[in-house]
Amino acid sequence: MDDAKETGRIEAFSDGVFAVAITLLILNIQLPTKSFTKDEDLFFKYLLDLWPAYLAFVTSFATIGIMWINHHRLFTYIKRMDTILMLLNLLLLLMIVFVPFPTALLAQQYISHPNLRVPALVWNGTFILLAVFFNLLWRYAAHENRLLDKKADQQAVESITRQYRFGPLFYIVSFGLAWIYVPASIALNLFMAVYFAFPGRKPRSPRDFPPAL
Amino acid sequence: MDDAKETGRIEAFSDGVFAVAITLLILNIQLPTKSFTKDEDLFFKYLLDLWPAYLAFVTSFATIGIMWINHHRLFTYIKRMDTILMLLNLLLLLMIVFVPFPTALLAQQYISHPNLRVPALVWNGTFILLAVFFNLLWRYAAHENRLLDKKADQQAVESITRQYRFGPLFYIVSFGLAWIYVPASIALNLFMAVYFAFPGRKPRSPRDFPPAL
Amino acid sequence: MDDAKETGRIEAFSDGVFAVAITLLILNIQLPTKSFTKDEDLFFKYLLDLWPAYLAFVTSFATIGIMWINHHRLFTYIKRMDTILMLLNLLLLLMIVFVPFPTALLAQQYISHPNLRVPALVWNGTFILLAVFFNLLWRYAAHENRLLDKKADQQAVESITRQYRFGPLFYIVSFGLAWIYVPASIALNLFMAVYFAFPGRKPRSPRDFPPAL
Amino acid sequence: MDDAKETGRIEAFSDGVFAVAITLLILNIQLPTKSFTKDEDLFFKYLLDLWPAYLAFVTSFATIGIMWINHHRLFTYIKRMDTILMLLNLLLLLMIVFVPFPTALLAQQYISHPNLRVPALVWNGTFILLAVFFNLLWRYAAHENRLLDKKADQQAVESITRQYRFGPLFYIVSFGLAWIYVPASIALNLFMAVYFAFPGRKPRSPRDFPPAL
Repeated sequence: MDDAKETGRIEAFSDGVFAVAITLLILNIQLPTKSFTKDEDLFFKYLLDLWPAYLAFVTSFATIGIMWINHHRLFTYIKRMDTILMLLNLLLLLMIVFVPFPTALLAQQYISHPNLRVPALVWNGTFILLAVFFNLLWRYAAHENRLLDKKADQQAVESITRQYRFGPLFYIVSFGLAWIYVPASIALNLFMAVYFAFPGRKPRSPRDFPPAL
Repeated sequence: MDDAKETGRIEAFSDGVFAVAITLLILNIQLPTKSFTKDEDLFFKYLLDLWPAYLAFVTSFATIGIMWINHHRLFTYIKRMDTILMLLNLLLLLMIVFVPFPTALLAQQYISHPNLRVPALVWNGTFILLAVFFNLLWRYAAHENRLLDKKADQQAVESITRQYRFGPLFYIVSFGLAWIYVPASIALNLFMAVYFAFPGRKPRSPRDFPPAL
Repeated sequence: MDDAKETGRIEAFSDGVFAVAITLLILNIQLPTKSFTKDEDLFFKYLLDLWPAYLAFVTSFATIGIMWINHHRLFTYIKRMDTILMLLNLLLLLMIVFVPFPTALLAQQYISHPNLRVPALVWNGTFILLAVFFNLLWRYAAHENRLLDKKADQQAVESITRQYRFGPLFYIVSFGLAWIYVPASIALNLFMAVYFAFPGRKPRSPRDFPPAL
Repeated sequence: MDDAKETGRIEAFSDGVFAVAITLLILNIQLPTKSFTKDEDLFFKYLLDLWPAYLAFVTSFATIGIMWINHHRLFTYIKRMDTILMLLNLLLLLMIVFVPFPTALLAQQYISHPNLRVPALVWNGTFILLAVFFNLLWRYAAHENRLLDKKADQQAVESITRQYRFGPLFYIVSFGLAWIYVPASIALNLFMAVYFAFPGRKPRSPRDFPPAL
């Protein structure tokens, strides 16, 4: 009883922010400013040349989507809330909302391709902060089970803590890599996305989550 | 008890994405850049000439709206979730968010009308992917009742599976038609929209849905 | 039991659409394209000259807000749903999303002021459709208590039906007025907004609503 | 029983508005219109020179975020609703949606720096109205416990009333300060943001909130 879910509205608000941020991404794919008369090949070429914009769209979409999955996963364990948690959550959402900017920067500069290092650094810097804020939120909530469900599976909780510990580290390595060779840095980032899409360790139950709500 | 609804947040997030995507469509209807002094006829003409933009707005709105109805319908049966389901749902939302782009493309090129085949192909290609992702999501969840309500009406479940099977097929036919005669392809698309707006087969109860939530 | 609320997701999706539509309105208030050096008076004058944009913002905001209040009011009585209801609700949302366009048109043309009749007619036409769709939704749900709470207060239900009946009528009168004298038509519209903000007749209970949710 | 939460949808709608308003802020950070070929220093300089835009983004984000925390806090006590409450809530949301405009104005004029007093006054004026509307909403709901949970902690209720009383006062002082010395006014505003982020007085329970929902 004492453990009734208190976090309904913080989740609803966060879902709203994630949903808007992920949908606004489409605004970066611009319609052509001219019409293509009889020349279909030119039209196809135009649409194909937009590929860095499509790639940025899909990458940002995947990034924010996976962040949402992680946010959702944390809040299946977090049952109580306080002002600090709300502020840490705001900090996290601040970065989520910011993600499309460096991604668009990367895509835009790719088209004129010579200078990828600067946007890659900005992109990676954003992910370092994101990983740090995810850790702050989780550690604050999980410290001595401060805001967790009293019946939370301790092993699953520790597995998340362990998985998250590597986040900032990896992104700092990737940041360093961007100085040397940008494609390697981007590849490491994609690997991290897959790493965070799945829970740290398979819980024993056939399902990945404890009953949510 | 074990079958408590776990999908609350995945639905809330999806609702948010659908809602934002459907509302952003209005941004494609541009205000006039000039003012119409005394000449009312010119003003009316201006507003009437925007009709392909209105049509694109209504078409995209109907499309996303019907997709939402389908998403809602599936989740009246899906009660549990896992990481794969969340990723498949993200894939589906990716296409939902993308829909306004090819629709606007079609409307925009219509105004300068000679080249409809290219945007019609892009439009249809989008719908093929949408239909495929809807099938993936549903089949993953429904396979051996993996994530469905244990008390789900088996006949209704099979009727959805049957109805969805035809989606990709029809859209591929429509894609082929677009190479030959664009209007026929668009007409087939509209027919599909109506087909998917209604459930595959009338359940016996007077209402179309099992109690949702 | 049989009367459990089925409309949770239709309300969540509608709330999302209302929320996005009402918030996008701010995009119509443009930042100045230049900077105002030392001349503060010029800056104030610039900000004051934007007043038709502020007025359009506040009017659209009030309109969509009051529509939301009405939508909310209807769904305190509607407990069940079917495909038709979802389609009628989509039709209603289509107009909600459209409202900012004619309002911005009215504000924009006011600034260059000579031609208000055309945008006033478009504005009013939108409200006629809105009123019609509200009636369709409500009458479909309320007809022989088709989708209403079985314990719904019959007097309150009839009072809504009565109040809504006048909507399309009044807006048609206002549409006619716009041909003769635009300010009178706008004044009638504002009166209607206030009329629909409050429930048709004071229920006997001290609160305006039956327990929602 | 009689005290079941009636405010679910007003909170959902408000969450949506807050979420959209806070996410739209990113649109104010513009991508560069040119590409930076080999000159990395120029690119870094470009990104650094955008700092007033970043600052405006973070400030507006923090402002709207803290307003959301306050809104959430009030609605942990408010359990019932009526038409007046919905209208007062709309008035509050109107100002929330408006916040990004004066903030962007302040940031934009800072870049061309000579004239900060006018945007600072507009900014402060917005906050005066926000504080007034927050007071109206709360006082209407809390007056003789009109719409509060019957079991609401009276001390916590009074502590909120006391904390909110100072809002309009402080913002009026800050408005006056802006005439004399803009930075002092901005500093006072930031102090107010921190003041409102935390509840007026620590309730005795270890958690800041009564169980929400």
